[in-house]
Amino acid sequence: MSEMQAVTAIELKPPYLVFVGDISSPIYAKTGLGVVHWRRELCLGQHRIGEKGIDLGLPDLAPSEAVARGAKTMVVGVANVGGFYPETWLDALLEAARAGLDIVAGMHSRLADLPGLAEAARVAGTRLIDARVPPKGLPIGTGRKRTGRRLLTVGTDCAVGKKYTALALEREMAARGLKATFRATGQTGIMIAGVGLAIDAVVADFISGAAEVLSPDNEPDHWDIIEGQGAILHPGYAGVTLGLLHGSQPDAIVLCHEAGRRAIELWPDFPLPELPVFIDRYIEAGRLTNKTIRCVGVSVNTSTLPPSGREPYLRELQNELGLPCVDPLAGGVAPIVDFLDREF
Amino acid sequence: MSEMQAVTAIELKPPYLVFVGDISSPIYAKTGLGVVHWRRELCLGQHRIGEKGIDLGLPDLAPSEAVARGAKTMVVGVANVGGFYPETWLDALLEAARAGLDIVAGMHSRLADLPGLAEAARVAGTRLIDARVPPKGLPIGTGRKRTGRRLLTVGTDCAVGKKYTALALEREMAARGLKATFRATGQTGIMIAGVGLAIDAVVADFISGAAEVLSPDNEPDHWDIIEGQGAILHPGYAGVTLGLLHGSQPDAIVLCHEAGRRAIELWPDFPLPELPVFIDRYIEAGRLTNKTIRCVGVSVNTSTLPPSGREPYLRELQNELGLPCVDPLAGGVAPIVDFLDREF
Repeated sequence: MSEMQAVTAIELKPPYLVFVGDISSPIYAKTGLGVVHWRRELCLGQHRIGEKGIDLGLPDLAPSEAVARGAKTMVVGVANVGGFYPETWLDALLEAARAGLDIVAGMHSRLADLPGLAEAARVAGTRLIDARVPPKGLPIGTGRKRTGRRLLTVGTDCAVGKKYTALALEREMAARGLKATFRATGQTGIMIAGVGLAIDAVVADFISGAAEVLSPDNEPDHWDIIEGQGAILHPGYAGVTLGLLHGSQPDAIVLCHEAGRRAIELWPDFPLPELPVFIDRYIEAGRLTNKTIRCVGVSVNTSTLPPSGREPYLRELQNELGLPCVDPLAGGVAPIVDFLDREF
Repeated sequence: MSEMQAVTAIELKPPYLVFVGDISSPIYAKTGLGVVHWRRELCLGQHRIGEKGIDLGLPDLAPSEAVARGAKTMVVGVANVGGFYPETWLDALLEAARAGLDIVAGMHSRLADLPGLAEAARVAGTRLIDARVPPKGLPIGTGRKRTGRRLLTVGTDCAVGKKYTALALEREMAARGLKATFRATGQTGIMIAGVGLAIDAVVADFISGAAEVLSPDNEPDHWDIIEGQGAILHPGYAGVTLGLLHGSQPDAIVLCHEAGRRAIELWPDFPLPELPVFIDRYIEAGRLTNKTIRCVGVSVNTSTLPPSGREPYLRELQNELGLPCVDPLAGGVAPIVDFLDREF
């Protein structure tokens, strides 16, 4: 690309045809299920191979039918063991490109490496988008203060609901007429939301610069709701977490946690300290690029507790921290948005 | 590479022929000058194009002459404006590969992209090593405690002497018969020392994993002296700094600084706090992977002060911090090694 051209995050063109191929397992279809859960209004239909694929509850459409109804992008909503494309998918992908659809996927292997697909897309003038691949030409982080407001979900660990919480916050804010945009930082989030940049795949020197590109200047009352990654006390991923925090320059953070988790998952020698320690560490680090950073709530996955213990857990945490504490799946995130709306 | 093969840092085979081409500026020859300064005993000769290149004080040797004397690697010791290879260098590079030399360079463009060079190297069975390119197949950081001891130079900013200090510590320790290995984390250091891995060029998810690869298990009394990168309060690079700190799991850190620097260079809106703040932040962050991490000294470039002010500056700092404070260029790093030797 030309150096004069602005670098931007991935942006998908809706509406979508969701491809599920011949994959029937909900575990491998989390992207497709997520797109339907969070962006139902953008999904025109699903494309299954011979009815073997999981039924997402959308109309079954061939690519040409979807295009006739206005579809612009086919979202590959399923993963395959190992992250490779099975041969059985190739005809469907070629058909989609030839029909005029962009294709987006989050697999390890590249769409353009599939036989004939790059050529088919070139002829049809459509895009092949690998959601794991960050844009070229990312800048070094500048630390320049941008206009608009930003909220970053941060975590005590990986897989504690940072993406879910951010999407739930965006939905709740939009429902109240607040201006909010979810900004995805991982391939699943990008494919669900249609906007984002795989922050953990950028070259290390450009982490905070990539985060700056992800949430550009905006209207003063607009909130970017940025999906966090990793954790600041994670021995594998803290560098990504810190660079994302610095580049996001959040006005507000929401700490995400899984009730009962005692150590970093898969790193049993790294116990998790109490939540106030995490809040302090995120605030301390975040002050570098936003002096007024605050924690505005805690989002906990309480499904690991017995049902009778969930409400008391959140109530006790709320009393201890003096912040709204929610389980986004159980009770939604309204108390956090109430707090945000009152304080900003 | 096979997934079963262990991933390792770059290791150059000495002795060297240092290529300076037709570049006469010492600024562009800092790698060549550095190799001669720090590894004079490994340098058999220099290779200039028509005597236009800078004279490093080594015998002028053609590649075939160097090979006859035992040279194994040609180190490209000069940079060119823009980081590209000028056409005038191609014949010399081809000649070196054909003569049986590995070639190592730290340019932005790749050696293998030069016309005919990959083929020449393949035929001769030699390696083309781009020092900016990290090895493939890097792991995620594990945080596992490794055997041996580690010292990491950390900084208040970029370009405050982290590489120089680490090399000076290694030399001083070696002179005392202590076991020490400099571990380079940037291309200049790799080419000077012959060992390392360009940490800022790895994909973000693998920063701490790369740092773990860089300083593997070692003898209990062996010190890896690891070149730091960036700074923990740098709005562009702190993610790299933190990941490198976690993966290095240092027992000891040496803080590097330039006297009088008031803000991050090129980031004037980011003032530098006092040195004890930096020490605290590095120690706090480093405790994640090494609970006994300590600061063992401060290394300051005092050349920015008037000559009469340099000694008093270091003395005052030493009184304030209770740690050896040195200017490695002016007085060497012996007080830090004394301290290290006494305390560990």
